[in-house]
Amino acid sequence: MTEISKYGEFGLIKHLTKDLKHVQPSTKKGVGDDCAVMDFGSKRVLMTTDMLLEGIHFNLEYVPLKHLGYKAAVVNFSDIYAMNGTPTQITVSLGISKRFSVEDIEALYSGIRLACERYNVDLVGGDTCSSMTGLTISITCLGVAAAKDIVYRNGAKLNDLICVSGNLGTAYMGLQLLERERLANAEQPDFAGKEYLLERQLKPEARRDILEALRKAGVKPTAMMDVSDGLSSELLHICSQSGVGCCVYEDKLPIDYEAAALAEEMNLNIVTCALNGGEDYELLFTCSIDDYEKLIPVDDLYIIGHITKPEYGCNLIGRNGEEITLKAQGFNAFN
Amino acid sequence: MTEISKYGEFGLIKHLTKDLKHVQPSTKKGVGDDCAVMDFGSKRVLMTTDMLLEGIHFNLEYVPLKHLGYKAAVVNFSDIYAMNGTPTQITVSLGISKRFSVEDIEALYSGIRLACERYNVDLVGGDTCSSMTGLTISITCLGVAAAKDIVYRNGAKLNDLICVSGNLGTAYMGLQLLERERLANAEQPDFAGKEYLLERQLKPEARRDILEALRKAGVKPTAMMDVSDGLSSELLHICSQSGVGCCVYEDKLPIDYEAAALAEEMNLNIVTCALNGGEDYELLFTCSIDDYEKLIPVDDLYIIGHITKPEYGCNLIGRNGEEITLKAQGFNAFN
Repeated sequence: MTEISKYGEFGLIKHLTKDLKHVQPSTKKGVGDDCAVMDFGSKRVLMTTDMLLEGIHFNLEYVPLKHLGYKAAVVNFSDIYAMNGTPTQITVSLGISKRFSVEDIEALYSGIRLACERYNVDLVGGDTCSSMTGLTISITCLGVAAAKDIVYRNGAKLNDLICVSGNLGTAYMGLQLLERERLANAEQPDFAGKEYLLERQLKPEARRDILEALRKAGVKPTAMMDVSDGLSSELLHICSQSGVGCCVYEDKLPIDYEAAALAEEMNLNIVTCALNGGEDYELLFTCSIDDYEKLIPVDDLYIIGHITKPEYGCNLIGRNGEEITLKAQGFNAFN
Repeated sequence: MTEISKYGEFGLIKHLTKDLKHVQPSTKKGVGDDCAVMDFGSKRVLMTTDMLLEGIHFNLEYVPLKHLGYKAAVVNFSDIYAMNGTPTQITVSLGISKRFSVEDIEALYSGIRLACERYNVDLVGGDTCSSMTGLTISITCLGVAAAKDIVYRNGAKLNDLICVSGNLGTAYMGLQLLERERLANAEQPDFAGKEYLLERQLKPEARRDILEALRKAGVKPTAMMDVSDGLSSELLHICSQSGVGCCVYEDKLPIDYEAAALAEEMNLNIVTCALNGGEDYELLFTCSIDDYEKLIPVDDLYIIGHITKPEYGCNLIGRNGEEITLKAQGFNAFN
């Protein structure tokens, strides 16, 4: 008997899908990227799915149901944007235990629907059933893109720039804050001045704006992902799928000052949080160094390093010039 | 606070989705049929999703994981066939608790993959995460169909014939048998001569063959569904969506003799099981009375009644001519 923790999430998926073959001519890309890609005759159809389980992915002691619904939808949209596509439809499946009321599920749905409205996505179906324990949310999202516009994880080339939007580790610090206040068990949790951290954790947005800005600037990324499991983990995905190495610089990592202050207060290393904290849902991409000038006017975007030869590996250059090998510590869901 | 059981599954979905609007031009049909329907420029894309939760939809004391995987995939294919489409891709999301080993999940996956092979469907993605308790399986399936071929639930017309494939109540009797032997707790459960009932419960097939036969016979159904919640429930869906009534005959209902014998033995009314037992995954459809002659050569297909004016309601004519109003007793997942 093999314990699942031996493999971890990515290992298990790889193990289970290692010799999958496709027979449908419409299947252009299966397991292994942010989305699957299908060709039904005109535009490509993208498909992604995400499951959230109570007690694993969310804690209803501090996550309001409306926010949870919003986030559950947005993380799927983020996967479609991460292929340079446009999300169009979702289905929502819910497993609901007896302790939830209709009003609870309405609140959850109102968050899902708000996200759909903001991102112009249609809710087209789903499944609702009772569960023995807790709440389970499984959302599948379809999107579209012209074949020539799709950006996979495997296109990074030697000397490409590595860019990331927004900031990193902030959602993770939001979670630390929520956990701290929950454990403190105070009547009125103290979130003053830290609202942004909470918002990053509770109500993330997908970076549609960055894609629009890149399109306007005439930049097409060579490889792209959204940062859901932490920068290190995502960089390793891009590098292994593209057959390249990478070099990123500690002093280029975009860090929010509120997040840094809280990390200091809580005795955490903010760089470690930026590298390994998940759920930022920022866009990480590579693009040709020839696009450097075009990137300058794009707001909220940071060049953090460049692609190297594969034999160099994946490394972070510290503030004092030291080289640190990147590891996917991320969030191992099976530990 | 409103308890969810007040609404039931269909009521809750209706309540939550009652004022949904679509903004994507590609959305042709949302909530309320076996699948959503999208138009991405050539063939229509169908989408359906199904969630299975341990302790609610399956009991691993008597359901082998490989069978469970097979069934979880096939019930989704059945929804695509029920729109007269062809399933093409699935994504699989799993929530797995610590008590499962890698070998367990391999067994589950081998069933899913076997179903995919048999039905020419590609497994193109998914999500795998740990769960606090039990196993959760959420599968989403895409399919294709030419726009003119799609059959919805709302097309039944006055005087149309009502047809059903295979037999009804058999999967339910298979479940009763499994439950009886589990409770008897015998070392060797007694399934002799009842293998077919078990197979109907544990390893159902989607009726692709019926659709092929109908195509060959030149019959296009006017309305269609798969029988997952029981004949009564499905007939009421078709009638309410088509704005018609129906009349079905007790002595026309296709009943398997093994199922009938077991019902007798267990003191159950087999007609009630046929009307309200779920999970048969047979096809229920209506078609023009002009197609009557063409239906005759189609194997394993039964005409059980006809469509009436809406004011007649939905009725079963008993063996002695008595009229019984059909009710969706089905499987109310929230009771």
